[in-house]
Amino acid sequence: MGKFLTSRSENYSQWYNELVVKADLAENSAVRGCMVIKPYGYAIWEKMHDALDKMFKETGHVNAYFPLFIPKSFLSREADHVEGFAKECAVVTHYRLKTNPDGSGVIVDPEAKLEEELIVRPTSETIIWSTYKNWIQSYRDLPILCNQWANVVRWEMRTRLFLRTAEFLWQEGHTAHATKEEAEVEARKMLDVYAKFAEEFMAVPVIKGVKTANERFAGALDTYCIEALMQDGKALQAGTSHFLGQNFAKAFDVKFLNKEGKQELVWATSWGVSTRLMGALIMSHSDDNGLVLPPKLAPIQVVIVPIFKGDEENAKMRELGNKLKADLEAKGLSVKFDDRDTQKPGWKFAQYELQGVPVRIAFGARDLENGTVEIARRDTLEKETYPVGQAVDICTKLMDEIQANIYKKALDFRAANITKVDTWEEFEAALAKGGFVSAHWDGTTETEVAIKEKTKATIRCIPLGNPLEEGKCILTGKPSKQRVLFAIAY
Amino acid sequence: MGKFLTSRSENYSQWYNELVVKADLAENSAVRGCMVIKPYGYAIWEKMHDALDKMFKETGHVNAYFPLFIPKSFLSREADHVEGFAKECAVVTHYRLKTNPDGSGVIVDPEAKLEEELIVRPTSETIIWSTYKNWIQSYRDLPILCNQWANVVRWEMRTRLFLRTAEFLWQEGHTAHATKEEAEVEARKMLDVYAKFAEEFMAVPVIKGVKTANERFAGALDTYCIEALMQDGKALQAGTSHFLGQNFAKAFDVKFLNKEGKQELVWATSWGVSTRLMGALIMSHSDDNGLVLPPKLAPIQVVIVPIFKGDEENAKMRELGNKLKADLEAKGLSVKFDDRDTQKPGWKFAQYELQGVPVRIAFGARDLENGTVEIARRDTLEKETYPVGQAVDICTKLMDEIQANIYKKALDFRAANITKVDTWEEFEAALAKGGFVSAHWDGTTETEVAIKEKTKATIRCIPLGNPLEEGKCILTGKPSKQRVLFAIAY
Repeated sequence: MGKFLTSRSENYSQWYNELVVKADLAENSAVRGCMVIKPYGYAIWEKMHDALDKMFKETGHVNAYFPLFIPKSFLSREADHVEGFAKECAVVTHYRLKTNPDGSGVIVDPEAKLEEELIVRPTSETIIWSTYKNWIQSYRDLPILCNQWANVVRWEMRTRLFLRTAEFLWQEGHTAHATKEEAEVEARKMLDVYAKFAEEFMAVPVIKGVKTANERFAGALDTYCIEALMQDGKALQAGTSHFLGQNFAKAFDVKFLNKEGKQELVWATSWGVSTRLMGALIMSHSDDNGLVLPPKLAPIQVVIVPIFKGDEENAKMRELGNKLKADLEAKGLSVKFDDRDTQKPGWKFAQYELQGVPVRIAFGARDLENGTVEIARRDTLEKETYPVGQAVDICTKLMDEIQANIYKKALDFRAANITKVDTWEEFEAALAKGGFVSAHWDGTTETEVAIKEKTKATIRCIPLGNPLEEGKCILTGKPSKQRVLFAIAY
Repeated sequence: MGKFLTSRSENYSQWYNELVVKADLAENSAVRGCMVIKPYGYAIWEKMHDALDKMFKETGHVNAYFPLFIPKSFLSREADHVEGFAKECAVVTHYRLKTNPDGSGVIVDPEAKLEEELIVRPTSETIIWSTYKNWIQSYRDLPILCNQWANVVRWEMRTRLFLRTAEFLWQEGHTAHATKEEAEVEARKMLDVYAKFAEEFMAVPVIKGVKTANERFAGALDTYCIEALMQDGKALQAGTSHFLGQNFAKAFDVKFLNKEGKQELVWATSWGVSTRLMGALIMSHSDDNGLVLPPKLAPIQVVIVPIFKGDEENAKMRELGNKLKADLEAKGLSVKFDDRDTQKPGWKFAQYELQGVPVRIAFGARDLENGTVEIARRDTLEKETYPVGQAVDICTKLMDEIQANIYKKALDFRAANITKVDTWEEFEAALAKGGFVSAHWDGTTETEVAIKEKTKATIRCIPLGNPLEEGKCILTGKPSKQRVLFAIAY
């Protein structure tokens, strides 16, 4: 096996690129940097969407929809925000095309120039806070707990499918609160939701932390994040939740009358995860045979493949296959019975391995005689023969087992790849090995930037609940009060 | 009541505009022509989304996602298509802003001009068929049955919330087939899905038909549609399904190897419904007190309002309210128990009427003594007192009754507003009265356009299964073989 893909050890990056395309997850489009999310990839994203959406609603949030376009002037209202987002945005300047006078296709109609250019949203704080201004008069209007599922555009120069694309899909929560405390609680609560989702659904262990000033979202007072570790030892930021203070309320003059009858500025959070999670999912679990999907996010949880020769056998096997499918579906599993005669069983095995289907049931003529089936699990590639009557129970149990096993595997991998270092030499050696590096830092942006320039490593986060500990900065030797987590990151 | 809104008889158009905003469905944004869909409105759209998505999947379709942007040259590939869509599109010409040298905000960076302009998708046939070219080699790759949930932009000059906005949300199905017959069956099948959704979920009766050549989608060989009648006698096109022939396969050179080993062009359909359905829903059922929602699409199906004075009473009532809520939820209903003491019961009654909650349960101190509750239905505004033990059954039954009743009401209204006419005078009189007008037409675009210029009426459709009947065109007197449906339309 593994013939479909470059192996991870040979070239991890190429392995990833090939896997995304060959497993039918996504592909590059005719538009630079924009991807096509193919049906199989989109089905996984839909499962992520549904699980997250449920969690958002359970924590009191509602969905809404705000415009795709942001007036150029809105971006400038918050100084840090424009600095962060103006550099890479799609700008709409005209609203009409016309036939080229020379008859060759269409050209932009110069008479249809917009008075003010519109930016395709890179994120929606500005348009949403301009809207909230009309929604908020008194403390009775607070909190506002809105989420939006949307597409956004950031004009990235170097793109990679799911990890960094010019257009991507995401959700962005935008909340408004009467007090600082409430907003801070909200930002942390949503970080917890993200961590729970990553660990329980994606089976990806994450470290919750807070970003340094240098790595904060443009316009935030604090950016909380969940950081995951990929199999190649690189970190991946899987979600962020921002405490925005009163920055956007100031920028858009959003005030409320408090219980004492005084005007106050509103407090804000925003938080988001994107189709980037697909990249994290793929790189956390998959192997040289292809995708390994956690059962909770697998579009097909069990595939049934009969091994037959000729139509007569096929008919008998179809009976068994359909029965198994119905029985498994009755247990709530999503099942595909693939009895196509246009592809050989071996090809099908490889294909479903490539696509990460957690469990495969196969049976041939002898199984039919013996009343057995072969059950193979994708995570360990183990297979075993069982009496057909046990198949449904085994598959049901395997869902939990596989979900738990790939989480544990990722957790063990991470545990083995967090290195504590105390000197610059150790730091460089640890980075070369890969993984998170826990080291002392003097707390200045200057040092953080210098370390990045020397090593490409960034401070991924200061973990929440980080123990205080006296130490010396690995670069400057200046005193430090706690270790932070460095890594080379996606 | 009715104090919140202009009445329909006074000014239907103003009634609609006020209702959309006051019932918290949507509002205009800071961006010309783009709307904000507020949480309550979005919750209805989500229910529409979920029901439709389920129906699409049950008919074998899968979701995918294609780029927001379309290279300008793609639009020109299909001659009719560019003619239809180039006139009203948002054009991205640059990919960066920079700080204004004079320090005032940001300006478009002239050095960041795109080589080829990008169009924000008004519809996705071109980008999707450029993708399908890579997906289709042989008959084994067909059919492709993809749907996309997305935002699209059409630069409308005169916009109205939900009915006509520059940006709107929709789904667009794009299918590829080996034969003409299969594509035609698909286009008709999806029309049936739309009609079923409109009638069973929205409780809006629709007429299925085919558009005249003049009213076809730009690039289609046939456009099927469902047409609904609003309370003011205007028609509204609620969904369309297009048989595209081989036009887009030609434009993007999409061929497949058939079973005989020959190259053939692929056959196509596309079909879509949008947030415009929200407009149809609102205008079909609502009254001068506000929205009337079909229970199947109501975010809150039952609201429970206690009528109390003081905290002690409130506590007793909370017990009953919470019990009723739990019992109703156990039956699968979505319920809100509103025991806020910041608003009076009368205000709440009016508010939930305005928002179209199908059933209201209210109880006061005397009800508590008597073991009764008052149950009011939104569609008829009738209220009656029942023993509290019957409340759950009554509410459950009312869901079906209200759903059926508002459908029947709309159906009766439509039946009373289809007028057969045989002369121009009758035609003008019928149009003045409103509704669909069934009349003979000579079959030429010239006459169709002339009628539109004289009366603003358009041919909404030639109903499917329309009986053939000899007659004379109401305008030209030329012979006609069948009646078609005219109306003034949204």
